[in-house]
Order: sequence, then C-alpha cells, then structure tokens
Amino acid sequence: MRVLGVDPGTLVTGFGVIDVVSGGVRHVAHGTIRTRSKDPLWVRITTIHDALVDLIADHRPDALSLERCFVGKNIQSALKLGHTRGAIMVAATAASMEVAEYAPTAIKQAVTGRGRAEKNQVAEMVKMILGLPDVPQSDAADALAAAITHVHGDRSRLVPFKEGRL
Amino acid sequence: MRVLGVDPGTLVTGFGVIDVVSGGVRHVAHGTIRTRSKDPLWVRITTIHDALVDLIADHRPDALSLERCFVGKNIQSALKLGHTRGAIMVAATAASMEVAEYAPTAIKQAVTGRGRAEKNQVAEMVKMILGLPDVPQSDAADALAAAITHVHGDRSRLVPFKEGRL
Repeated sequence: MRVLGVDPGTLVTGFGVIDVVSGGVRHVAHGTIRTRSKDPLWVRITTIHDALVDLIADHRPDALSLERCFVGKNIQSALKLGHTRGAIMVAATAASMEVAEYAPTAIKQAVTGRGRAEKNQVAEMVKMILGLPDVPQSDAADALAAAITHVHGDRSRLVPFKEGRL
Repeated sequence: MRVLGVDPGTLVTGFGVIDVVSGGVRHVAHGTIRTRSKDPLWVRITTIHDALVDLIADHRPDALSLERCFVGKNIQSALKLGHTRGAIMVAATAASMEVAEYAPTAIKQAVTGRGRAEKNQVAEMVKMILGLPDVPQSDAADALAAAITHVHGDRSRLVPFKEGRL
C-alpha cells in the first residue's frame, strides 16, 4: 500500500508519500506546495489541487491521509483552510483514493507515542522511522507523519526503519 | 457569455445557468445538488464537485459566480462550507472558467435594487427577470441571482426579460 499524507495549508501545504513494505514503512517522496498570498483564494487552491493531481499521477498512492485541522477561533481562517482541504480531497477522490483524517493528537501519538509531543519531536521521529538523512521541513514532516499514522493501525507492518519506536 | 451561478451548501447546493444575449439575459438551466448528511464530508463534496463537472461539460459556461458566504459564528460550519466551496472552485478552474464572488448584499442589490431584500423577493425578481413560469426553489434562485449579478456590471446587456427592473 502507498499512502499520500498531506498537511493542508493555504500558504504552504506539506506532502509526503510512503510505502508500506514487508518489515516497515519506506519513504518515497516529500515536499511542499507553496502559493502566493497576493493571489485570490480560488487561484491558490487551484495551484494546490493541480500540484496534487500531478503528484497522484506520478506516485499513484492508494490512500490520502490528512491531518484534521485545528482551526482555532478565526472564522475566516477556518473558511480558507476548508477551501484548501476541499480542493485536496477532490484531487484524491478523482483518483479513486481512500480518504482518511486524523486528529493532530492521534498523529503525534502514532509517531512519537505522546499525543502532546512538540512539532520538532514529530519531525525527528519521522526522520528516524523513515531513515531520512535529514529532518524534513516542518509541513512535509507533518504530512509524512499523517501518512505513517494511516498505516499505524496494523502495527505488524510498522516496524520502524531504524531504531525508532512507534 | 454564459454564466454558471452557484449557491454553495454542504447539504443543498443550488446552481443556475444563464446566457447574456442581445437585449437581456436568458435562462438556460437551474436546479440543486443534494448530498446525504450521513456521508463523510469528502464523499459529500465529491458528489457536488462531480455534479458540477458534469454540468460544466453539458453547458460549457465561461464564468462561475459564487455567493460569498455568510458564515456566522460557527467554526465547524465555516470549515465545512469552505470544503464545499473549494470543491466547486476547482471544478470551475479545471475548465478554465473565470471565477467571481459576490457578497449576499451585492447580489440582492443587483437583482432587487435593495441590499436588504428578503429571500423570497430575490426569487420573485429572478423569476421575473428570466421570464420563468414559476418561482425557482430557493437555493437555485440564489444561484441564478449570483449569475445575474455577474453580468450586471454591463447594464446595457441586462434589460430584464419581462417587466422586471434591475
């Protein structure tokens, strides 16, 4: 199974692709999609949507794993983020992918063992689990963490790549 | 020019297609897209997205005109509506359509001449302007009103179909 994790953001959207392989998870790709704040929202979400369509065509993942967002109290931010997430979801469903969402605490718990872990601890564990040479950029790390969480249900397949513990 | 107006809603999305013709605007189609509240959000927005993709393929509109939503104070509703609007916008941009948004008051003003008109007054004016036999269903009427607003900038093209005044 191949999983595309996405950390949605109107300015920066992180993505990460992993494979579930015998004995663990394997890193395939990660990165960020950036939009220009001066562009109208529909242009920005189209940029994100189209980048995801390309990523999906390139990597052919089976599932999309999204971080369920913490929206705080700002209605306009929630509305904007909703647009972004909607654009991401339809890119996945158009490719007949399964879609799953996980709460931030569930992702932290799955990756570090602690629901209240700090962002840099998540990124460090993602690096360790996937055997990456460097700590990934923060949004990409969160996306990889969401992907890892999606396959976490089946612990037998999730022996960390190196010495990391899930 | 052909305009697709949409009144986005996670449960009911209204749509309306109009043509700008010599001497006024002409009704092409209108209706609603409904989703099941028991389905997950990504299934619901995919239903709306796919229905719009079909509508756009059938009618080939040049522009999408959306009602800028009034989101109130509920963060979760704003987030959900954002998803719906994002899914609608990418359906339009994938077809290289122009996208425009109008505030509810701007739409009421354009259609009835009063920014604080009641919903049923908007629907009545839409019926009159487009020469429809009946008052359209409320969400479809709002969608047609959004479409009419988009072409309203050029008043010379917007002589109402019957006795209505813009």
